[in-house]
Amino acid sequence: MSELRGACILGQSGGPTAVINASAAGVFQEALKQDCITAVYGAAHGIQGILNEVFYDIGKEDPYELELLKTTPSSMIGSVRYKLKDPDEDDTDYKKLLDVFRKYNIRYFFYNGGNDSMDTCNKISKYMQKAGYECRIMGVPKTIDNDLWGTDHCPGFGSAAKYIASTTMEIFLDVRAYDTQMVTILEIMGRNAGWLTASAALASAKGYGPDLIYLPELTFDIDRFLDEVISVYNKKKNIIVAVSEGVKDKDGRYIYEYGPALTKHKDSFGHVQLGGLAATLAGIVKEKTGAKVRGIEFSLLQRCAAHLASKTDVDEAYLAGQAAVQHAVQGITDKMVAFERAEGSEYKCNIKLVNLTDVANVEKKVPREWINKEGNGVTEDFIKYALPLIQGESRPPFENGLPRFARLKKVLATK
Amino acid sequence: MSELRGACILGQSGGPTAVINASAAGVFQEALKQDCITAVYGAAHGIQGILNEVFYDIGKEDPYELELLKTTPSSMIGSVRYKLKDPDEDDTDYKKLLDVFRKYNIRYFFYNGGNDSMDTCNKISKYMQKAGYECRIMGVPKTIDNDLWGTDHCPGFGSAAKYIASTTMEIFLDVRAYDTQMVTILEIMGRNAGWLTASAALASAKGYGPDLIYLPELTFDIDRFLDEVISVYNKKKNIIVAVSEGVKDKDGRYIYEYGPALTKHKDSFGHVQLGGLAATLAGIVKEKTGAKVRGIEFSLLQRCAAHLASKTDVDEAYLAGQAAVQHAVQGITDKMVAFERAEGSEYKCNIKLVNLTDVANVEKKVPREWINKEGNGVTEDFIKYALPLIQGESRPPFENGLPRFARLKKVLATK
Repeated sequence: MSELRGACILGQSGGPTAVINASAAGVFQEALKQDCITAVYGAAHGIQGILNEVFYDIGKEDPYELELLKTTPSSMIGSVRYKLKDPDEDDTDYKKLLDVFRKYNIRYFFYNGGNDSMDTCNKISKYMQKAGYECRIMGVPKTIDNDLWGTDHCPGFGSAAKYIASTTMEIFLDVRAYDTQMVTILEIMGRNAGWLTASAALASAKGYGPDLIYLPELTFDIDRFLDEVISVYNKKKNIIVAVSEGVKDKDGRYIYEYGPALTKHKDSFGHVQLGGLAATLAGIVKEKTGAKVRGIEFSLLQRCAAHLASKTDVDEAYLAGQAAVQHAVQGITDKMVAFERAEGSEYKCNIKLVNLTDVANVEKKVPREWINKEGNGVTEDFIKYALPLIQGESRPPFENGLPRFARLKKVLATK
Repeated sequence: MSELRGACILGQSGGPTAVINASAAGVFQEALKQDCITAVYGAAHGIQGILNEVFYDIGKEDPYELELLKTTPSSMIGSVRYKLKDPDEDDTDYKKLLDVFRKYNIRYFFYNGGNDSMDTCNKISKYMQKAGYECRIMGVPKTIDNDLWGTDHCPGFGSAAKYIASTTMEIFLDVRAYDTQMVTILEIMGRNAGWLTASAALASAKGYGPDLIYLPELTFDIDRFLDEVISVYNKKKNIIVAVSEGVKDKDGRYIYEYGPALTKHKDSFGHVQLGGLAATLAGIVKEKTGAKVRGIEFSLLQRCAAHLASKTDVDEAYLAGQAAVQHAVQGITDKMVAFERAEGSEYKCNIKLVNLTDVANVEKKVPREWINKEGNGVTEDFIKYALPLIQGESRPPFENGLPRFARLKKVLATK
């Protein structure tokens, strides 16, 4: 092992989660302990912060506030959706990154995000290698969507799943308060992968769950959907339907586009901004059945609910950040930290390392065999997979009745 | 004090809250202790359950499950919205009630609900008096809307307020993850009274709150609203606006009705979208400003979030139920249990009793002087009022990663 002395920098990238800051705490606290790491930086808004030389000197932060990162949702140093160009076509950004790395003697680079972010991380890693700049580059996984390849699951998923299942249970009780007939449609995040929507089934396992579940892994047929809803509604009178925001018809058209799309933004990766599916489906079901229908969109609440996070998830998110630093210091580079579930009936996950190249841009979807034959629910295999990930309760300390989140000083780094 | 021996019955009425079952626990546990109370019943779906003679024998329930009612949301024995006719016009229901009371020797009647429910309770109380049937009748207050007259506040409000403020703080962090400009519009419950929407300001006091707040107490002017949103947005770039679902224009028209009219959005089936106020306002703001706008409706989540309830609220809800039984046993009737805030800097609420006649159908709104001069925020007086009500954290026990709610056997009562 060759000791590499220099500064480290962490970037947060992609959509916020309840635990991305727990991974930041893992990186920061571990990096601050390492003798070979001469400065610990947090990039303001990911790669953009490095390109613009806007990053914070984490050594100047109060240790108590760094500890509070474990229970503070969203991306406290700022996230970004910035797509690096192919360096063979345009290497402007890469040259700038190299300049900045040289200027601040940055020798450790940690990037915390999902598929797109691992692509960014991978491109930078390969460019630095080619440029002959010695630098340890590690990806730290993060996404509520749970769609990263090469890892048993992603930090962020367990907490969102716990929130979704618990809230579905509360809604189940709420909609049964009156002796009335009703269809409740829950819209849950997940553009291409249905892991989160499937998580509503964890509430079913407790007897308080949705009657029908539709994932984006399968083609959504509005007529079959209506038939199934009407059939279950006629039998049960009061039903809950969980639908993934990303469901599409056989022509690849998003179902939410069947209704008026109020906000059809595209982000810089070209993703259409979704929303409004619950209202759209509620309108259609109401029209066809005459039933009382309520659409509920979990919206941002499902990804930032640190007040109802999974302790397992928080601990693992922290561990992933910590392990990235430890491995980098030991000479590892060009990898993403991943989880491997140990054999046996007791849940245990070990850290493993996967190649950034293999992870970049690959999406892991819910396997067909974990979705029921009819395509409107999940199997026991999914429950067995997901249940260990929502174990334990984590929330921020409360002060004067409200959560106490981390407050960072964000002192700008100077050369 | 004359001892009155007989059965007691509790009815739950109106919209669910996180703590209506805590009041039920207070009534049930206290009633089961009282020697003069010969049976304890829970009416299935309020007054409807009594009229149909469908009620549960609470003495048959497991004491542990009754204890769990304190942290179980919604209305576990079932709620109802049933309006009793004026007995002078049609006394059919009243005669039936009297028959049922006689048949089961019901001598104690507790009704837990809001304004409408107190009207029901009042009518029954007056009818029983006129009929010469000795019966102690007590109202137990409940409503997230906090709009009951004669009480400092209502059980249910504190928990919903705590949820709204905490969740607003989480959303505040989430929408700041990216370095982008954005308007987030939160739609909060409250048709005529703005107490809940005002509660979002508790997050402002922590530095994570909305920039603008609109309550239904004041006329909503869409042009002034747009001016204010644009002005704050231009200054701050990333803003949160909290709006009460019940805001109306000067002609008394609900603003959510503007949606289809203004933007003429119809889905591909030609139906007008069912979307609520947040979606409507988001559409209008987007159209006028071109800004990225996200509408978030707290929907049912705000009223059934037992996982983030106020301990103060849960304790007081329990106390209100318990006090109703204790006072009734002591000979009191025809009253609603209410709270009176003690003088002094330390928060303390004492139980007082108010006449059902005075409470029935009266709405208590946010006083004009607690709303700022511009009509787009609240004053420090509101914060001082509301903050003590959200103190302390209550949530259900968690088992295997998910909440463990009360499971009642619901054994039907037999004569």
